[in-house]
Amino acid sequence: MADDYQVQPINGNGTVTETPKPLLELYVKASGIDARRIGADLFCQEFWMELYALYEIGVARVEVKTVNVNSEAFKKNFLGAQPPIMIEEEKEATYTDNREIEGRIFHLAKEYNVPLFEKDPSVEKRIENLYRNFKLFLRAKVDFDKGKKIPSTIDEMPANIKVHYNRVCEQLSNIDQLLGERNSRYLLGDSMTEYDCELMPRLHHIRIIGQSLLGFDIPHNFTFLWNYVMTAYRTAAFIESCPADQDIIHHYKEQLNLFTNQRETLQSPTKTHTIPDRVLTDIRNKGLAPDVNVH
Amino acid sequence: MADDYQVQPINGNGTVTETPKPLLELYVKASGIDARRIGADLFCQEFWMELYALYEIGVARVEVKTVNVNSEAFKKNFLGAQPPIMIEEEKEATYTDNREIEGRIFHLAKEYNVPLFEKDPSVEKRIENLYRNFKLFLRAKVDFDKGKKIPSTIDEMPANIKVHYNRVCEQLSNIDQLLGERNSRYLLGDSMTEYDCELMPRLHHIRIIGQSLLGFDIPHNFTFLWNYVMTAYRTAAFIESCPADQDIIHHYKEQLNLFTNQRETLQSPTKTHTIPDRVLTDIRNKGLAPDVNVH
Repeated sequence: MADDYQVQPINGNGTVTETPKPLLELYVKASGIDARRIGADLFCQEFWMELYALYEIGVARVEVKTVNVNSEAFKKNFLGAQPPIMIEEEKEATYTDNREIEGRIFHLAKEYNVPLFEKDPSVEKRIENLYRNFKLFLRAKVDFDKGKKIPSTIDEMPANIKVHYNRVCEQLSNIDQLLGERNSRYLLGDSMTEYDCELMPRLHHIRIIGQSLLGFDIPHNFTFLWNYVMTAYRTAAFIESCPADQDIIHHYKEQLNLFTNQRETLQSPTKTHTIPDRVLTDIRNKGLAPDVNVH
Repeated sequence: MADDYQVQPINGNGTVTETPKPLLELYVKASGIDARRIGADLFCQEFWMELYALYEIGVARVEVKTVNVNSEAFKKNFLGAQPPIMIEEEKEATYTDNREIEGRIFHLAKEYNVPLFEKDPSVEKRIENLYRNFKLFLRAKVDFDKGKKIPSTIDEMPANIKVHYNRVCEQLSNIDQLLGERNSRYLLGDSMTEYDCELMPRLHHIRIIGQSLLGFDIPHNFTFLWNYVMTAYRTAAFIESCPADQDIIHHYKEQLNLFTNQRETLQSPTKTHTIPDRVLTDIRNKGLAPDVNVH
């Protein structure tokens, strides 16, 4: 699979110009189900989204390729490096390190005045431990639920797991509050920044894995947060780079050493990019997301 | 294996103070030969060296643990994250991303005025593509030598491999020149910086893999460069974090899909931390490295 975002810039008068734009190739981890499909690596999606932002405004050409990290061809070509890997053939550069990849994207964003890397310590603080805490909750609850056909409910969870559960909910609530105060489409304002490229994929994983493995959902009363999730589902950079539900579930099951059933491996890949009806009503009632408010 | 660098600060009067120093745990990739031994991951060694620098001057406590990335226990604990992984239990923080790890080390270095991250664009430019070019040379030559008992000599290499060979030598020569001009122990001066943490392990890999798989050595006339390699072999941060020759060779053979013989897997691990006699004489004659100049 190779998504090719090459476009040629068009002048005001409609003629095609020959501005040399850098071509950035991003190698992302393939799904364990099918190497032609996108896998659920969070860093891969994060950089893909950032690159998409550069592509959208015509700063760079971007090509994305999925790679099977277990294949001999991949190992030999990249000698131990792991995706995400970015290549810029023109500069004979291979960026195999997240620091280098971000450094290059940062440089391009700066050069073209793209506000992708604006800093906001209070946003940073609110989002930084969410995913770690979710993983602690996930591991503890999956262990506890071992052998059960249906995940335990919140009331059935022992105190040591409830601690993790409460922490995740508290943090989601903090982000919901922040979004309510800011009342903006993205975390920092009207345009997407690296914080969104970090948070959106993580929230989506929390949602998909919560539902499929934990009997957990992002609480429905977090209207601002759900509105933000809906924004993700309407952001091209997110949609394009988002793995299918099955590939996300498969990724976590592999890590958790859980049995992968045929539901995931044989199903046609689907993407849950809708939000619960009740939440949608709340969003409308609060007058958020004007585009869903049209009757 | 767990190297524990915990030390308690001692006052001028010899009493132990109770300054709370952050405890940083670094999880590094284990060797494919023996999970208790350090593997040859370059990013792991780079961060280990940086952490060692902080430990040495008493800024942080550091514990290093090797992890077998293929074990179910590791997968489940870290859910897809790959080493290097840094944990700071006190802050409930897990840094799974090179950007985050470096960010934390950077912050600590800044707080305590450790000049670990001084910038020097000309140094950056000279070292940046060396390892990539070495890997291109390695891959091409190993392919060409397939089935041969002894690696081909420089004269026997076809032009398309010689191109890579020349590029590596040219770059090594540029670094040799830079070191000659600066005439300093490390790249930027008397103390180690992140550039050294990046270059030293890579030069060592080039040396070990060059000798064992390519019939190649860092040219002996690059006296300043060899003197720098010798500095690495006398720098505690490098020595402590350095994998054994066998583990380095095994790492590359795995990636290149080459047969690993019992020489590597059964031998007691050894570390080549000496430099060729002829080079040592040249270093002495040039009056470099005063500590080897004593008779």
